[in-house]
Amino acid sequence: MLPSHRTRADTQGAPEGFAVELGRDAPLKLDCGVTLGPFTVAYQTYGTLNADKSNTVLVCHALSGDQHVASAHPITGKPGWWHILVGPGRPLDPSRYFIVCANVLGGCMGTIGPSSVNPETGKPYGLGFPVITIADMVRAQAMLLDYLGIANVFCVIGGSMGGMQTLQWAAMYPERVFTAIPIACAARHSAQNIAFHEVGRQAIMADPEWRGGEYSLHDTTPRAGLAVARMAAHITYLSEAALRRKFGRKLQNRSAFTYGFDADFEVESYLRHQGITFVERFDANSYLYITRAMDYFDMAAEHGGVLAKAFGNTRVRFCLVSFTSDWLFPTSEMREIVHSLNAVAADVSFVEIETDKGHDAFLLDEPELHATLGGFLNAAAEKRGLA
Amino acid sequence: MLPSHRTRADTQGAPEGFAVELGRDAPLKLDCGVTLGPFTVAYQTYGTLNADKSNTVLVCHALSGDQHVASAHPITGKPGWWHILVGPGRPLDPSRYFIVCANVLGGCMGTIGPSSVNPETGKPYGLGFPVITIADMVRAQAMLLDYLGIANVFCVIGGSMGGMQTLQWAAMYPERVFTAIPIACAARHSAQNIAFHEVGRQAIMADPEWRGGEYSLHDTTPRAGLAVARMAAHITYLSEAALRRKFGRKLQNRSAFTYGFDADFEVESYLRHQGITFVERFDANSYLYITRAMDYFDMAAEHGGVLAKAFGNTRVRFCLVSFTSDWLFPTSEMREIVHSLNAVAADVSFVEIETDKGHDAFLLDEPELHATLGGFLNAAAEKRGLA
Repeated sequence: MLPSHRTRADTQGAPEGFAVELGRDAPLKLDCGVTLGPFTVAYQTYGTLNADKSNTVLVCHALSGDQHVASAHPITGKPGWWHILVGPGRPLDPSRYFIVCANVLGGCMGTIGPSSVNPETGKPYGLGFPVITIADMVRAQAMLLDYLGIANVFCVIGGSMGGMQTLQWAAMYPERVFTAIPIACAARHSAQNIAFHEVGRQAIMADPEWRGGEYSLHDTTPRAGLAVARMAAHITYLSEAALRRKFGRKLQNRSAFTYGFDADFEVESYLRHQGITFVERFDANSYLYITRAMDYFDMAAEHGGVLAKAFGNTRVRFCLVSFTSDWLFPTSEMREIVHSLNAVAADVSFVEIETDKGHDAFLLDEPELHATLGGFLNAAAEKRGLA
Repeated sequence: MLPSHRTRADTQGAPEGFAVELGRDAPLKLDCGVTLGPFTVAYQTYGTLNADKSNTVLVCHALSGDQHVASAHPITGKPGWWHILVGPGRPLDPSRYFIVCANVLGGCMGTIGPSSVNPETGKPYGLGFPVITIADMVRAQAMLLDYLGIANVFCVIGGSMGGMQTLQWAAMYPERVFTAIPIACAARHSAQNIAFHEVGRQAIMADPEWRGGEYSLHDTTPRAGLAVARMAAHITYLSEAALRRKFGRKLQNRSAFTYGFDADFEVESYLRHQGITFVERFDANSYLYITRAMDYFDMAAEHGGVLAKAFGNTRVRFCLVSFTSDWLFPTSEMREIVHSLNAVAADVSFVEIETDKGHDAFLLDEPELHATLGGFLNAAAEKRGLA
């Protein structure tokens, strides 16, 4: 197991991150009814918690993300997935903020998930792992903050599924959150998005190497199925315009069609690469569980179908960001959240950023996103009395 | 083999359709360089060829379509895929027109394709079948019309890949076509569409039962892979709005989440059904070949990158139709074709139909589509002197 810590001055993040066992005394009651505990949560931190413990930024990661926000990924060696936004001189600067990110419940980067060993059987959970929800992920993060001695966070922020967690944080623990920045997400997963997730799950479960979810017992892994799932999902992360601009109909290292089924087109080669590399760093069962958590997400449903009720008399300061070419979580869905927040007279900023980069824009070097976050965070930090 | 005929009075279509062997004397030279012949083309007809042979309507089918336009499908027993448009009192009325539709080259409903027996080996072609193009499909259709003694057609019409063939007809055989009606298509397949096709192909080829394309020799079939391919494709045929209207987040015969991986949502159950039923009637290798033909389609590329040159001094009367919510073949791509036709001063009508039904609208009971086609065909028939 990874080392654990309480607060640690480190703007680079510890190479492997940290891990802690939670829920030994008070286990976590999941939405599905199962009680979980003790269980491990793996996390990463950047910067130092200040004296009055008022400078924590909780970053929530997306479906295929992890806790390595701004430091090298331990498997791939690539820079952290949000290194563009988190780092010295960036909107989320570790010299100002204590930045925490935990691998989600159900994940495969150290937090308990379907590939963890079930203490009752001595074998990996597989499909014996309980189905978790976005709210369960948030509850586990709250337990981590309790462990770290952090009562309130300055900011919760995340894109895509990270945005869902951010909304859930604001709804479940409004008194613990000063500002919430949900980016490129929705308050409920749409039918189209459920459909794409179901294609991915069926691709994984159709792979004979999946073996009913017990592939690790057979020393195998459903590589082909997980790669197909990733390929299908990856298309939804980009816009048609971005695909046209980046690839169009360009051929891959050839001047004419081969009249065969090799990757004649660059876009085919690119997609295959996305599938193959994903398999190296991600677990197929975690993919099933995390997509399911997103499908189940519907904040209004928990409040009699009225989303505004999720936010009551909230004092959280919201900043929502969407992207014009994001068709996975389109602006119209973000605007529904804004309307619900307006209905309870919440403090809301909303910015729709013009870009052709699609959903992936939240991970990319998108100057208007950086300017928006920098401006909002600076103003909020002054209000919160952060230097 | 099915019976063949020259002209036959039958407004209902023959139950099994017809088949003819073509290319015995003059084989078909495919774009890939391979020479094909003799080969079988399976087709269906409705109505009677008139005395001056001026009333033929050639219907071109889409990726997963076939020759059974308006008569029961021999495998599923379901009504023909375009029975809404083709029939007595409908825009394409067999009492007025002689309607012909051939299963495309590479298909699996009687025309030669990868599941046909290769006479050189005595075994099914599998991946030994030559990769075909949209132009090859059109050449085979032209040979069928030659066989039927039909020099000129009153109309070529089709949606999606059928629209691609329609465009190709107008470009390759302008003197044989009086009117052309391409619906919901494009003059070149986009990067995003190639990407979705590649996901489908990878899903099929990842299925161990595919066995390098030789599954029929092993008395098996890559059911799971083909079903996943169909599921992914099916999402692209619908719009987000249609999915929301039809399914939204409704649960399938249950009142609460099961916290598992069964089809909790109606949209999941619907998609699974689409995948399972498709496998009953379609061949996996045909899916590879036909998607590849669509990927390769790029009419401008054949003319130095200038689409207008494909249509030269065309005298074909065009009617193009697109649908507002079709994101597979959006209006913008249809408009590019219209601009190219305008550039050569062609006779063009263009209608964008407001609907939330997505790409599938061309197959559905869409009153404005019926009115558009009825009006255009009536006016053209009068010009052509058809009663």
